[in-house]
Amino acid sequence: MASMSRRRQIYEGKAKVLFEGPEPGTLVQYFKDDAAAQQKRGTITGKGVLNNRISEYLMTKLNELGVQTHFVRRLNMREQLVREVEIIPLQVVVRNVAAGSLATRLGIAEGTQLPRSIVEYYYKSEPLHDPMVSEEHITAFGWASTQDLDDMMAMALRVNDFLSGLFLGVGIRLVDFKLEFGRLWNNDEMRIIIADEISPDSCRLWDIKTNDKMDKDRFREDLGQVEEAYQEVARRLGILPEGGPADLKGPKTMQ
Amino acid sequence: MASMSRRRQIYEGKAKVLFEGPEPGTLVQYFKDDAAAQQKRGTITGKGVLNNRISEYLMTKLNELGVQTHFVRRLNMREQLVREVEIIPLQVVVRNVAAGSLATRLGIAEGTQLPRSIVEYYYKSEPLHDPMVSEEHITAFGWASTQDLDDMMAMALRVNDFLSGLFLGVGIRLVDFKLEFGRLWNNDEMRIIIADEISPDSCRLWDIKTNDKMDKDRFREDLGQVEEAYQEVARRLGILPEGGPADLKGPKTMQ
Ligand SMILES: Nc1ncnc2c1ncn2[C@@H]1O[C@H](COP(=O)(O)OP(=O)(O)O)[C@@H](O)[C@H]1O
Ligand SMILES: Nc1ncnc2c1ncn2[C@@H]1O[C@H](COP(=O)(O)OP(=O)(O)O)[C@@H](O)[C@H]1O
Ligand SMILES: [Mg+2]
Ligand SMILES: [Mg+2]
Repeated sequence: MASMSRRRQIYEGKAKVLFEGPEPGTLVQYFKDDAAAQQKRGTITGKGVLNNRISEYLMTKLNELGVQTHFVRRLNMREQLVREVEIIPLQVVVRNVAAGSLATRLGIAEGTQLPRSIVEYYYKSEPLHDPMVSEEHITAFGWASTQDLDDMMAMALRVNDFLSGLFLGVGIRLVDFKLEFGRLWNNDEMRIIIADEISPDSCRLWDIKTNDKMDKDRFREDLGQVEEAYQEVARRLGILPEGGPADLKGPKTMQ
Repeated sequence: MASMSRRRQIYEGKAKVLFEGPEPGTLVQYFKDDAAAQQKRGTITGKGVLNNRISEYLMTKLNELGVQTHFVRRLNMREQLVREVEIIPLQVVVRNVAAGSLATRLGIAEGTQLPRSIVEYYYKSEPLHDPMVSEEHITAFGWASTQDLDDMMAMALRVNDFLSGLFLGVGIRLVDFKLEFGRLWNNDEMRIIIADEISPDSCRLWDIKTNDKMDKDRFREDLGQVEEAYQEVARRLGILPEGGPADLKGPKTMQ
């Protein structure tokens, strides 16, 4: 693995590390077990392995559906090859059920079905704690154009339809989720694709029968059994790594 | 004033009281000297008299321009007759310069000229502290339709153009302001008009040369000379009550 150790690290985030990819225009996304939520920091054993698999699975299906994502192929337990994009500095959130900040800000009981899906935008800024913004702020400050927003909203709603169906099929309610988008250039043509990850780190997933939380809220709210919840999501999607749970402890350091 | 004492009080807010008007479909808006800002409560002597005048003046001009408002006519020092509307539960804010919550939330230095005017919506809810909302929340919860929002935004931008010009003409920079809108029915036809007030309580107004604040921020930030600032705005607009400042002490209780 000598060649691996020479690759350049581009960025280390809270949950992932990006490395220069093997070809121009690609990156390697390494999934860590680290978890962060506001002030809280911790580790969820096996999370990186599971999120790498879950995001691979979901993005592969989205690519097949014609919703383009950055995902190219999984490289190993914790790494996947993706297309390098210019990240649009927004978190695009789709909500089906009131939870989290929407429940708090608008005084709606957590668990209330929303009258329809709601798309929200948050400005990606760590020091500002990702403030919610509207189309007005986004276009005025040039973070994205009206056309970009229309494209992202249409894609986000397609993802919502697909994921709602898929998770329903495995007994899970898709409460909300967050997407990131990036710009990809092909000569002078720009298109927007889905980047980052889609996983229990970025989705709220509730068991359809018990309403048990099966996502990062278990970590945020100290509910315990965090690893088990992530494993259960992967298990229901039929994508637990071959070795089963034992395999999840697998290499935590970068190979 | 015997007949006056019989009129029914419809609502008492933080800065104004609404009474049943003399004809159906009208209300009397009484302007108090009371001032409120988050936890802070206080009195600004003469504010009610001045805001009654200033709002009369600005809304009369807007009516003449074809931007319809609820204003019918001033009745006395502290009261004006308005058309009763069904208030849309939104505060529509137009910003030209970063200040207040926008400066804080997006980390932009107060006083920075915005790349273009930005229209924001806040959900009117005292217990929730008027949270910012976007078109998505507004239409999903049925507070207003897309058409309503388009109408309000177009009107708000016209008001911004007019007020920016007017205030510039008297040496004042219009930093931002808040509007409320209401629905008015005429048989089966609905139109949206501007309601509430337009005054130094609802605008940020900075002296063009000194950047001195001439609005409610003097109260919010304990800058002193609050009454004087409101008077100065009225004076520059050429509408100080005949008796001059002395007159502003005038009846504080409802007549
Ligand atoms: N295809 C891509 N090209 C470039 N940047 C990407 C791509 N996919 C995701 N990113 C960025 O890489 C980072 C992923 O690491 P993460 O740990 O999630 O970071 P953060 O702590 O900033 O959320 C994010 O900043 C994300 O915007
Ligand atoms: N034309 C109108 N018809 C009905 N209600 C109105 C009209 N104009 C203003 N209002 C409402 O009357 C109240 C004015 O009083 P105010 O002291 O500003 O109240 P608040 O403390 O709720 O801001 C506001 O709630 C405003 O929405
Ligand atoms: Mg991230
Ligand atoms: Mg008010």
